[in-house]
Amino acid sequence: MFYNILENVRKKAPLIHSITNNVTANDCANILLASGASPIMAEAPEEAEEITSVCDGLSLNLGTLTQSKLSAMLISGQAANRKGIPVLLDPVGAGSSQFRTQGTHELLKKVRFSVIRVNCSELKALISGEKVKCGVDVRKSDKITEYNLDNTIEIAKELSKKYKSIIVVTGAFDIVTDGNKTIIIENGNPMMSSVTGSGCMLSSLITAFISANSNNIFYSTAAAVCTMGLCGEKAFQRLKCDDGNSSYRNYIIDGIFNLSEKELIQGAKYELR
Amino acid sequence: MFYNILENVRKKAPLIHSITNNVTANDCANILLASGASPIMAEAPEEAEEITSVCDGLSLNLGTLTQSKLSAMLISGQAANRKGIPVLLDPVGAGSSQFRTQGTHELLKKVRFSVIRVNCSELKALISGEKVKCGVDVRKSDKITEYNLDNTIEIAKELSKKYKSIIVVTGAFDIVTDGNKTIIIENGNPMMSSVTGSGCMLSSLITAFISANSNNIFYSTAAAVCTMGLCGEKAFQRLKCDDGNSSYRNYIIDGIFNLSEKELIQGAKYELR
Amino acid sequence: MFYNILENVRKKAPLIHSITNNVTANDCANILLASGASPIMAEAPEEAEEITSVCDGLSLNLGTLTQSKLSAMLISGQAANRKGIPVLLDPVGAGSSQFRTQGTHELLKKVRFSVIRVNCSELKALISGEKVKCGVDVRKSDKITEYNLDNTIEIAKELSKKYKSIIVVTGAFDIVTDGNKTIIIENGNPMMSSVTGSGCMLSSLITAFISANSNNIFYSTAAAVCTMGLCGEKAFQRLKCDDGNSSYRNYIIDGIFNLSEKELIQGAKYELR
Repeated sequence: MFYNILENVRKKAPLIHSITNNVTANDCANILLASGASPIMAEAPEEAEEITSVCDGLSLNLGTLTQSKLSAMLISGQAANRKGIPVLLDPVGAGSSQFRTQGTHELLKKVRFSVIRVNCSELKALISGEKVKCGVDVRKSDKITEYNLDNTIEIAKELSKKYKSIIVVTGAFDIVTDGNKTIIIENGNPMMSSVTGSGCMLSSLITAFISANSNNIFYSTAAAVCTMGLCGEKAFQRLKCDDGNSSYRNYIIDGIFNLSEKELIQGAKYELR
Repeated sequence: MFYNILENVRKKAPLIHSITNNVTANDCANILLASGASPIMAEAPEEAEEITSVCDGLSLNLGTLTQSKLSAMLISGQAANRKGIPVLLDPVGAGSSQFRTQGTHELLKKVRFSVIRVNCSELKALISGEKVKCGVDVRKSDKITEYNLDNTIEIAKELSKKYKSIIVVTGAFDIVTDGNKTIIIENGNPMMSSVTGSGCMLSSLITAFISANSNNIFYSTAAAVCTMGLCGEKAFQRLKCDDGNSSYRNYIIDGIFNLSEKELIQGAKYELR
Repeated sequence: MFYNILENVRKKAPLIHSITNNVTANDCANILLASGASPIMAEAPEEAEEITSVCDGLSLNLGTLTQSKLSAMLISGQAANRKGIPVLLDPVGAGSSQFRTQGTHELLKKVRFSVIRVNCSELKALISGEKVKCGVDVRKSDKITEYNLDNTIEIAKELSKKYKSIIVVTGAFDIVTDGNKTIIIENGNPMMSSVTGSGCMLSSLITAFISANSNNIFYSTAAAVCTMGLCGEKAFQRLKCDDGNSSYRNYIIDGIFNLSEKELIQGAKYELR
């Protein structure tokens, strides 16, 4: 299912325009480079359209959102739609503030997204407008477990149909759905949640994968999620006695850099429903 | 003295709203996660109040200050005061420019701070308005040594009484005072000054500690200062031949991640006066 | 040729004001510290002049440019010129958007630069105004090879004379020219292009070197370029089996931290024409 997907990223080296947050921009750029893609970060509305127009994909991340960045996102999103390149939305903290929730809804109204990546709290905020009081991370009651998996899939499918986008919901299980088919992914390690921006990095990685495989967005999204999780597993095995979350972050990015397609295909743990 | 302080951070996992600088935001987020706290970075005035209102603590850092971030800090600081959660001020570079000095004084006028963390140059700038020409780092003549320790303590006590805040002054010795009691801390390693943002990281760590121990702010502040210094010592011991300041930064954060309460209590070097 | 240059950086510890991009600011600050210099990042127009006026050098980097940062750059650049301290320009992505190209030309019109550091695409954009469609990285057709080396040198010399600045062009070969003399540098490793901000870090390093050697800007620029390349080589040798681009970044900065003047002089590979 995942044949040639990673290889296409390495070969095509897609140029990804990222409008992202200040906290994790460096890690996002390095994970794009690790995957074989090439990052360009530009957040001024004045240049948003021109930058997007030379790129192969666009990644919009709402962490540390400002009014100016939101304007740039709207311009870039529409430019990407006109050009027909993949666009990903990571509505970090949607539901945590009116500003982010309204920004998210404005983006969803004016831009078509190939992929929307959320955690379970953000998913609920997008569906119901329910205000989720848990910062940018997932509420404990919102974590995906085997007990609420089916329900989460149903909500994700609903969102997928509403926005005609692939929906990715990350948690203990990760879910990728196009509204009909769903892939449930079990790669990953709990320690990934102790690294800031592991979600942002995944969003960058997905954008790289779908931009190099734009005729195969569903499976290349799932391949990116497996890749991130698998590299989280590999990085965990690599931890030495004194290592903590900072070394772990480096090992995850290193892992993407070194991952072969064979390793990905052998290590991916998923179920197609 | 430090019993249960670190354990409370791990157990309560306080959510910390940080309005901080672009240079060290990633390290600050990762050190919060390493301590067991959870970071949320949001700097738009539009969402400052809402974000702060769901948090357990607030950390304000004036590095790379902008007018917009200053507005967000004022809104968040007042929201935190209304909610009664701990607020820390790190007036990076106060005294280096009128903009930062005035911003600092405006914050001090409108927000009550649980803790103010400064280096010796910033301390003098806060007391006297004296313009200190040494960038964001401490002037050589302002370093705390055994020769000026008593004098520095007196100035810190004066500031503590003026603002009804715990004052932390960092240097070769670190000082924590509530205006009456003072703790002098000798943990740390000179190499910490070759890592950008070691002061910012300490401020984040203090915010995590006081937010999980809000009934014990004086000792939990001191415990955070000891923790940072102790992890600077451990990280130094871990350095291999080719390692430099970049690996050292990773080792410090890793050290916080792995620190046990027993190690902290055994390794803390302080004197209560 | 490079005697005492690195030693002067260590000894004088120049204070460098950097107005740089959000993506690589942390790495730039840490590489400045690794070299022995001291960083101060400040991007608000309100404080740009005051901050620059206490510094020994100024580094302007156009990645993630905003209108506000451009204003700060103009103010700081002119303040640096009045004070007579070295100023470096890194016109990241000049040619990628009108905003960056016009910003670059406005800076070049109003500020005298000691050094301008570009890749080959940016070089062409500065000379011809030709719009280069390749994001912030160099276009494949623009890479310096042995086949276009002489031509690239001629263009660089032309630019050097036009702006009375040392020009650095980085690629497979690096070129440093003052319009008459040219140094061709062969240090470096291809893996450096898989680290985000390796160009930004080089620009920071050059600023440190020229600020501590302001009477010897041509050779200290070349020494900085050799230093960065040599540490890229050393870091590559240090890579272990599982290491990737994230560890490689740490090793480069570590390498600068540990580099001795003797190693630099022995390891520098250059030809003076």
